[in-house]
Amino acid sequence: MSVTAAKGFTAAGIAAGIKENGNPDLALVVNNGPRRAAAGVFTSNRVKAAPVLWSEQVLKSGQVAAVVLNSGGANACTGPKGFQDTHATAEKAAEVLGAGAGEIAVCSTGLIGVTLPMDKLLPGVETAAGRLSEHGGEKAAIAIKTTDSVHKTSVVTKDGWTVGGMAKGAGMLAPGLATMLVVLTTDADVEAEALDRALRAATRVTFDRVDSDGCMSTNDTVLLLASGAAGVTPAYEEFAEAVRAVCDDLGQQLIRDAEGASKDIKVEVVGAATEDDAVEVGRSIARNNLLKCAIHGEDPNWGRVLSAIGTTKAAFEPDALDVAINGVWVCKNGGVGEDRDKVDMRYREVHIVADLGAGGATATIWTNDLTADYVHENSAYSS
Amino acid sequence: MSVTAAKGFTAAGIAAGIKENGNPDLALVVNNGPRRAAAGVFTSNRVKAAPVLWSEQVLKSGQVAAVVLNSGGANACTGPKGFQDTHATAEKAAEVLGAGAGEIAVCSTGLIGVTLPMDKLLPGVETAAGRLSEHGGEKAAIAIKTTDSVHKTSVVTKDGWTVGGMAKGAGMLAPGLATMLVVLTTDADVEAEALDRALRAATRVTFDRVDSDGCMSTNDTVLLLASGAAGVTPAYEEFAEAVRAVCDDLGQQLIRDAEGASKDIKVEVVGAATEDDAVEVGRSIARNNLLKCAIHGEDPNWGRVLSAIGTTKAAFEPDALDVAINGVWVCKNGGVGEDRDKVDMRYREVHIVADLGAGGATATIWTNDLTADYVHENSAYSS
Repeated sequence: MSVTAAKGFTAAGIAAGIKENGNPDLALVVNNGPRRAAAGVFTSNRVKAAPVLWSEQVLKSGQVAAVVLNSGGANACTGPKGFQDTHATAEKAAEVLGAGAGEIAVCSTGLIGVTLPMDKLLPGVETAAGRLSEHGGEKAAIAIKTTDSVHKTSVVTKDGWTVGGMAKGAGMLAPGLATMLVVLTTDADVEAEALDRALRAATRVTFDRVDSDGCMSTNDTVLLLASGAAGVTPAYEEFAEAVRAVCDDLGQQLIRDAEGASKDIKVEVVGAATEDDAVEVGRSIARNNLLKCAIHGEDPNWGRVLSAIGTTKAAFEPDALDVAINGVWVCKNGGVGEDRDKVDMRYREVHIVADLGAGGATATIWTNDLTADYVHENSAYSS
Repeated sequence: MSVTAAKGFTAAGIAAGIKENGNPDLALVVNNGPRRAAAGVFTSNRVKAAPVLWSEQVLKSGQVAAVVLNSGGANACTGPKGFQDTHATAEKAAEVLGAGAGEIAVCSTGLIGVTLPMDKLLPGVETAAGRLSEHGGEKAAIAIKTTDSVHKTSVVTKDGWTVGGMAKGAGMLAPGLATMLVVLTTDADVEAEALDRALRAATRVTFDRVDSDGCMSTNDTVLLLASGAAGVTPAYEEFAEAVRAVCDDLGQQLIRDAEGASKDIKVEVVGAATEDDAVEVGRSIARNNLLKCAIHGEDPNWGRVLSAIGTTKAAFEPDALDVAINGVWVCKNGGVGEDRDKVDMRYREVHIVADLGAGGATATIWTNDLTADYVHENSAYSS
């Protein structure tokens, strides 16, 4: 279903020859209206890929007619040529779809520092346009995969309207979004301003708290397009909740597919003085390589949790820290708590709770363990 | 040589039975004067081990008679009992050495969250005191090893005076010092205030810029003791330079012995607007797991360098960034530079230069690659 679950959208996914192995590598998502409202959230990395620079401009109008996405090359750190290539891609899509180039968002993913084979990409856009279908969402989701082992889609259907979407990402996941491309669509009749508000509220507590390996990408993009085809304008809160639910589901799928991971780790910080404190502590724990190795070894090493908390500026007293791993409070009052042998770590999901004892704020960050497979996958990536 | 290279010091290293495998685990370093001036630098982790809390107090007087160091247990996150144990250790050393407990610094290293076997440690202090020798420096350096594959010592001898030292550390190396214990000694006649100034100046540009895995310890301690036995007071700058040289040498030894590492990576940031910018960028590069994996795979993946730079707040323009790897400028003006196939990465040392093009400040951070061996060593650590 993916991006075509909502009415008013067609999509396609094809193999344009950008990837040398012949796998699908080009997706097109078209909003057939009647409305073409849109919102976008982009990487906070200051080294931004050409398609990010382009799409940021497009989104300023709050209107998107179509999105062209390619895997097989990030078009990042490619200089003026890279930007020209993105521009040419938008022009091509505009031409074949009868839209303006300024209404075409472009997303790319793959290796940094390599220019795209435009002789493959531009004809691919034309081919994809010829295969647009109301059932094309699944193929589009497949065409944006890079190291993803599965394609990721999610749909929430409410009373007469739908929010659906697709995502790619399997590593380089870190706040400021993960290395991921996400396109969400809805047939609800929602204006660009409300789309923007709902999207930012959703990504702040979902994708922004998915921190697989602490590495922030140059290409992250999350787009939300509204066709209005359902002819329904839901209450804002209900709409925002549906967007959040789809983002949350896709974010979880990203974590479960993280490169080389054997554990999904839910780091829940409670008892914080502020939500910012909770997020800072959660990220510090989620990024501690020693802890991530310990979790991989099914070792409930709470000392490494405390050591990570200690590097933050959050409000806490060291002798008031409690830590639970999979329900066992292995650390109480900053020291030894319940018997660590009681902790069962056989399953893929690991749940760490850190209680700062400093207030009532909470936050949850998701991460993965650090494994030899992660090292292998990422040391051979470009070879 | 180590801590007994300078006149006025005796040391011992013994197996007290703290480690279950019977390896040496207790060291004693004694300053026999005539001066007993001292300075110390400690972890900036807010979760501090009991011996750090104790020794910070001791160092406030600027006077240290002896240092007791144990491996086999960090005595961190051990609550009031842990602090009592450190106190008892200092009392014991004071008793057998005829000093005051307030003049005894204590350092511990090993697992967090485990109390020390005081029935082994206290008799061990007495045994070590009986074996103090002017040739005991090597044995002391051996006794503080944990996962270290080699013991680390360094000596600089000047005109009539000497600075020497020992270090332990092989992982959990990050700024705010590494997980390491370092004791430096000198027979120069230097007052506590000058010792403190020289030590802080040295650690700021040496140990604080050794960032093997981004993980900051609860136990880091660097002590500098002066006996005055040489009867010489060198010019401050000359003395500070000798201290810096010994710290630099020991820091390099730590990096070369980092757990599971196959590469030592020198990240040199140049063209920064300020030294703080250079350090921030250097750390961001040094902590990027994807880049560390790429270096392990001998892949000159400059895109990951740019991606890491992009997450900082340093002054730079993305299209003015240059990056060299082992002398080849693979990235020029934020895009593709010289042919990456020219980069020879066969050797253990890898040199990355990032030119921000924003000023004249520089900084160098040392780190290691991320390897499957690192994962293996740290996922099986406490089992």
